[in-house]
Amino acid sequence: MTILAKLDAPPDAVQTAVDYQTYAQQRLEPAIWDYLQSGAGSGATLLKNSAAFNQVPLMPRPLANVAGGDTQLHLFGQTFAHPIVLAPIAYQGLFHTDAERGSAMAAVAQGGQMLVSSLASQTVEAIINAAEKPLWFQLYWQGNRERTLTLVKRVINAGYSAIFFTVDAPVKQASMVLPPHIAAVNLAPALPFNLAANASVVFDGWMRQAPTWDDVQWLRQQISIPLIIKGILHADDALHAMRLGCDGIVVSNHGGRVLDGVPASLTMLPEIAQLTAGKIKVFFDSGITNGQDVYKALHLGADAVLLGRPYVWGLATLGAIGVAHVIKLTRDELEMTMALCGAAQLAHIRVNNRLSDR
Amino acid sequence: MTILAKLDAPPDAVQTAVDYQTYAQQRLEPAIWDYLQSGAGSGATLLKNSAAFNQVPLMPRPLANVAGGDTQLHLFGQTFAHPIVLAPIAYQGLFHTDAERGSAMAAVAQGGQMLVSSLASQTVEAIINAAEKPLWFQLYWQGNRERTLTLVKRVINAGYSAIFFTVDAPVKQASMVLPPHIAAVNLAPALPFNLAANASVVFDGWMRQAPTWDDVQWLRQQISIPLIIKGILHADDALHAMRLGCDGIVVSNHGGRVLDGVPASLTMLPEIAQLTAGKIKVFFDSGITNGQDVYKALHLGADAVLLGRPYVWGLATLGAIGVAHVIKLTRDELEMTMALCGAAQLAHIRVNNRLSDR
Amino acid sequence: MTILAKLDAPPDAVQTAVDYQTYAQQRLEPAIWDYLQSGAGSGATLLKNSAAFNQVPLMPRPLANVAGGDTQLHLFGQTFAHPIVLAPIAYQGLFHTDAERGSAMAAVAQGGQMLVSSLASQTVEAIINAAEKPLWFQLYWQGNRERTLTLVKRVINAGYSAIFFTVDAPVKQASMVLPPHIAAVNLAPALPFNLAANASVVFDGWMRQAPTWDDVQWLRQQISIPLIIKGILHADDALHAMRLGCDGIVVSNHGGRVLDGVPASLTMLPEIAQLTAGKIKVFFDSGITNGQDVYKALHLGADAVLLGRPYVWGLATLGAIGVAHVIKLTRDELEMTMALCGAAQLAHIRVNNRLSDR
Amino acid sequence: MTILAKLDAPPDAVQTAVDYQTYAQQRLEPAIWDYLQSGAGSGATLLKNSAAFNQVPLMPRPLANVAGGDTQLHLFGQTFAHPIVLAPIAYQGLFHTDAERGSAMAAVAQGGQMLVSSLASQTVEAIINAAEKPLWFQLYWQGNRERTLTLVKRVINAGYSAIFFTVDAPVKQASMVLPPHIAAVNLAPALPFNLAANASVVFDGWMRQAPTWDDVQWLRQQISIPLIIKGILHADDALHAMRLGCDGIVVSNHGGRVLDGVPASLTMLPEIAQLTAGKIKVFFDSGITNGQDVYKALHLGADAVLLGRPYVWGLATLGAIGVAHVIKLTRDELEMTMALCGAAQLAHIRVNNRLSDR
Repeated sequence: MTILAKLDAPPDAVQTAVDYQTYAQQRLEPAIWDYLQSGAGSGATLLKNSAAFNQVPLMPRPLANVAGGDTQLHLFGQTFAHPIVLAPIAYQGLFHTDAERGSAMAAVAQGGQMLVSSLASQTVEAIINAAEKPLWFQLYWQGNRERTLTLVKRVINAGYSAIFFTVDAPVKQASMVLPPHIAAVNLAPALPFNLAANASVVFDGWMRQAPTWDDVQWLRQQISIPLIIKGILHADDALHAMRLGCDGIVVSNHGGRVLDGVPASLTMLPEIAQLTAGKIKVFFDSGITNGQDVYKALHLGADAVLLGRPYVWGLATLGAIGVAHVIKLTRDELEMTMALCGAAQLAHIRVNNRLSDR
Repeated sequence: MTILAKLDAPPDAVQTAVDYQTYAQQRLEPAIWDYLQSGAGSGATLLKNSAAFNQVPLMPRPLANVAGGDTQLHLFGQTFAHPIVLAPIAYQGLFHTDAERGSAMAAVAQGGQMLVSSLASQTVEAIINAAEKPLWFQLYWQGNRERTLTLVKRVINAGYSAIFFTVDAPVKQASMVLPPHIAAVNLAPALPFNLAANASVVFDGWMRQAPTWDDVQWLRQQISIPLIIKGILHADDALHAMRLGCDGIVVSNHGGRVLDGVPASLTMLPEIAQLTAGKIKVFFDSGITNGQDVYKALHLGADAVLLGRPYVWGLATLGAIGVAHVIKLTRDELEMTMALCGAAQLAHIRVNNRLSDR
Repeated sequence: MTILAKLDAPPDAVQTAVDYQTYAQQRLEPAIWDYLQSGAGSGATLLKNSAAFNQVPLMPRPLANVAGGDTQLHLFGQTFAHPIVLAPIAYQGLFHTDAERGSAMAAVAQGGQMLVSSLASQTVEAIINAAEKPLWFQLYWQGNRERTLTLVKRVINAGYSAIFFTVDAPVKQASMVLPPHIAAVNLAPALPFNLAANASVVFDGWMRQAPTWDDVQWLRQQISIPLIIKGILHADDALHAMRLGCDGIVVSNHGGRVLDGVPASLTMLPEIAQLTAGKIKVFFDSGITNGQDVYKALHLGADAVLLGRPYVWGLATLGAIGVAHVIKLTRDELEMTMALCGAAQLAHIRVNNRLSDR
Repeated sequence: MTILAKLDAPPDAVQTAVDYQTYAQQRLEPAIWDYLQSGAGSGATLLKNSAAFNQVPLMPRPLANVAGGDTQLHLFGQTFAHPIVLAPIAYQGLFHTDAERGSAMAAVAQGGQMLVSSLASQTVEAIINAAEKPLWFQLYWQGNRERTLTLVKRVINAGYSAIFFTVDAPVKQASMVLPPHIAAVNLAPALPFNLAANASVVFDGWMRQAPTWDDVQWLRQQISIPLIIKGILHADDALHAMRLGCDGIVVSNHGGRVLDGVPASLTMLPEIAQLTAGKIKVFFDSGITNGQDVYKALHLGADAVLLGRPYVWGLATLGAIGVAHVIKLTRDELEMTMALCGAAQLAHIRVNNRLSDR
């Protein structure tokens, strides 16, 4: 193992977020790096996420007047400098001692927002205190309503201003063994299964502790802050969430980590965005690696995007500074793409990328 | 050649059936490994079988209530715990001393079924005795009706409860030379050809000993147990089998081993399933390597699937234990896929995977 | 350079024509091997020829009664045992001392036919004497009508029974330098160009010596034996040849050797075959490497096919014996494919490969 | 670093322009080579440019009478021997001491034309003096109208006879550091930005100095020589330029160097050519590497093409001689392609490549 020179600032060679991968990989143990990068099964969905972006062309529109443009976004009563939200990556203590507090500080410093994971390695109170601003919370179902409500009340008390309820990963899959100092410090111990002799671990174990649409309806009645359903790919499920009074959805395949062979979430975005347009907020997740990707997701109908692995590459390399740098690079790329494609505001992106108007 | 440490249990590194490939390849002589893995010609059909599965997306449907679901299947008067049938791989003594008896015991122990090959390396009686339950028999035409009927009567007497008549490999192609202790112990010696001077080995030799539709009609009249035609790709042939009173068909390209350039059998499945729906049973064969593949084949209309090379990887590595483990892993993957896609029963799979309902 | 053991018979490892490539490459000087294998420019058309065959699926039709079938073909008053014609490869003395005489003897011994090249390295008389049967002659335009007619009369006198007029290579492109003992022994020296100072070598040199449709019309009037135009890809040109009274065409892109970026000739075959069906004979050339390819070309409408590089691999390895073996292997593969796809005669191939009849 | 033997003439191994790449790479410092070859971002647009040409088939039309054909082009009152224009590559002193003067002399010697870059490393006067004929000038906006007009007036005074106004690269992206002896000698120093504290470098810096359609309209009124807009991909922008009285457009994605993910310019050419046919001149840029490519661009509607990187490979290897050789090779390939596809004049190309007329 090479001893790595300590870095205090972004290396010159980093021109875009993916350039951080080399540095991050050098700094992380192989098992942790693999855990971060891997997808389910053969990784087919990971490849689809990437290929889907390559298939969306960008259409330059030179000579448009975009001087003075900006990337401002108004969402749930807040104003953000840009539409890039940090995704709820679990156990950030694995990557850097700054962990979730570092990511949250970086998000806020860059005028954006972070979704703090149920599986955070620091307490939700410590993280929001570091951020000094309201954050958003990503909720995993805690096996039953009582345990779930306890967790939700705690994060609302701590100042979290929106709940993103992840519904697409009801089964805890084989994963890495956590080192002793890393844990899901905000959660109570998991409930036991108590299976009968010939029972199915999947159908009689995990799925009896999984949430259903009834639970979404119940949760909606328990809280008054925005409730967003994370992990939607099918248009019917987006409409279902809307009918139950949810404030938004995250079109996501969980970064290709849950079920191999699932479509790219970008493929499913346009139909969902069209059916829900203007009625609920549509976030896009899974596969964003740069500002061109952000532009493409917004063009296909997203209101904002979740950025996942790329900011962890920055976190692993430089802690909070690396996260801030990744956000900045991505936003700069978004601005450049908007300028070249003739969009002075986020709202122009959706209509401006057409290959042809006839 | 490395001396391999003996294994008594599945290695931890095996998370899915294909992980057994490394272990199996280390345990088998190269000629045997190549014989198992190879496809006809350039292997184009093998690649098509695999690519066809990649092109069928899985559609997660979170929040469905699937607690208490199962994978039970009722078929030909029997109830199976799952729809995974072991395919009729020939000469299993090549792979492990457990051979066909090991595979049959594993199939039954896992609540499933096995198709025993005409080219089994153990007697059909020994195999069914080991299984202690009725098995199914894969029939090759024995050159004429008399010889064929002798074989069929023998296996029915031994307790086999269904005949799967393979019709897509009328010519014995160049293959490996069998070691002295491995033989088709259930078959009489092959009939000679007695060709004229300028005669064609194909048209005047092999094809004069090959079965025709008339022979199918004749065979149907000889037996009262279920008769299933294995090796159908064209919808007209499926309908023909149905009209002759067969109980089912196996949509198969013989694992890509007979004619290079044949379509993936998954490609041909939907039309056949639609035309025969509910009237005869449709089995799918060729290309299944995991539980997601099983889900996809059932979604496209199969009632059950044949699992081929993957269980032989387990057999070569650990004998009967390896086969049982492969079946278990595949069934677990099927359950997980059903749970994530919102299907609590096999019957729900066919309707539940649609990318969109509008 | 390794000294190669002399071969007297086909090596066991040769199961299909392409298996001869290794042996041929070992026996030939690199420059000669490259000359044989190469395509124009980047080789894009070579790849297209190959890819086009991969895209045509074969559809097995088991249980058809094909016992006693054959591959006989009646063409221009002759009966051939199969539809595989040797293509007019130039300068065969480069590959083996048997040269064109070896190829012709092999073709006739296998019950087929050979197209002897204008650029043969042996005299047309010596070749037909070796064959002891009428052969076909491939004609290159000799710069003007007089010189061309002299050549045509000579080959007709020698006993050649059909003229295949190659029209798709009017410009002699950069190629290998011939060794001193190899020459186009049947041709008079090339005509000089006499170009003006600023003249174009292409438009004022080569193309002033190239044939036109008027020359085809003239040639048709000079000879009474069958005249076939070789090098047609556009349907209009096929119809033009038909209107001028030609007896057939060869759909060909010259094996990808003339113009890079040209479509696969297999791609152009169906439309041409449909428009000319039954009125003139359609030969297929460019990309055939085995009997499955022959089946596909006949299914798409060809009456017979030209086999090119593959027989030269056999020639380079074993002389006439190698050529005969390549023809035999290819015919056997054709028979096997017909048997598996349910075609007992060549005429059945065209209708029998449909993926579905509904 | 190997010491390279000096070359005085094109190496025999060079049969087409891309063969110069090896020699050029050996002669240039890696940073300069990378700068020349690179595309924006991941290079996706570079690959698209190349793939788009591969997808356009060439259709041979043998037996057409093309003797005496030529490649002459009449454009803006001049007659050129061929439609190949040298693209405005910046800082040519990086590649060879002959620099822009060498390229211009070669273009004129070969009967063609060159577009001299705003970022030329030699004065516009020196370049046109070397050429001894009117050249064309590529204009970058100089931050405001006054500075731009000063530059335009200077080049018109120097004898440049057309202005190609590049509008698709308003932001100067990260690039190589120029060596001390190379500079944009024809330009005044860049204007400063004077940004407010939280201002966007893109929207408040670069884009406030970028030209708009109003500036195009203004420029049109300032000059009477032909004005062509370079960097159009969207058909609406082509029509906009036409309505403002421009004399032509260059369909271009800037050789894939500005925005990664942009469509191949060849993909956008047909619609634009159809909408503007006969009304303004359509130049094609981005991806041309040989004469077949030129033919394809003209077939899809271009009046002439810009040749970029390939002539710099020649320049780097042999100076002006290399550039002239690249132009000659490309023109010869165009002639050969025309002859084989049955086109005797440029005007025939557009109608002659159809795969089928029915």
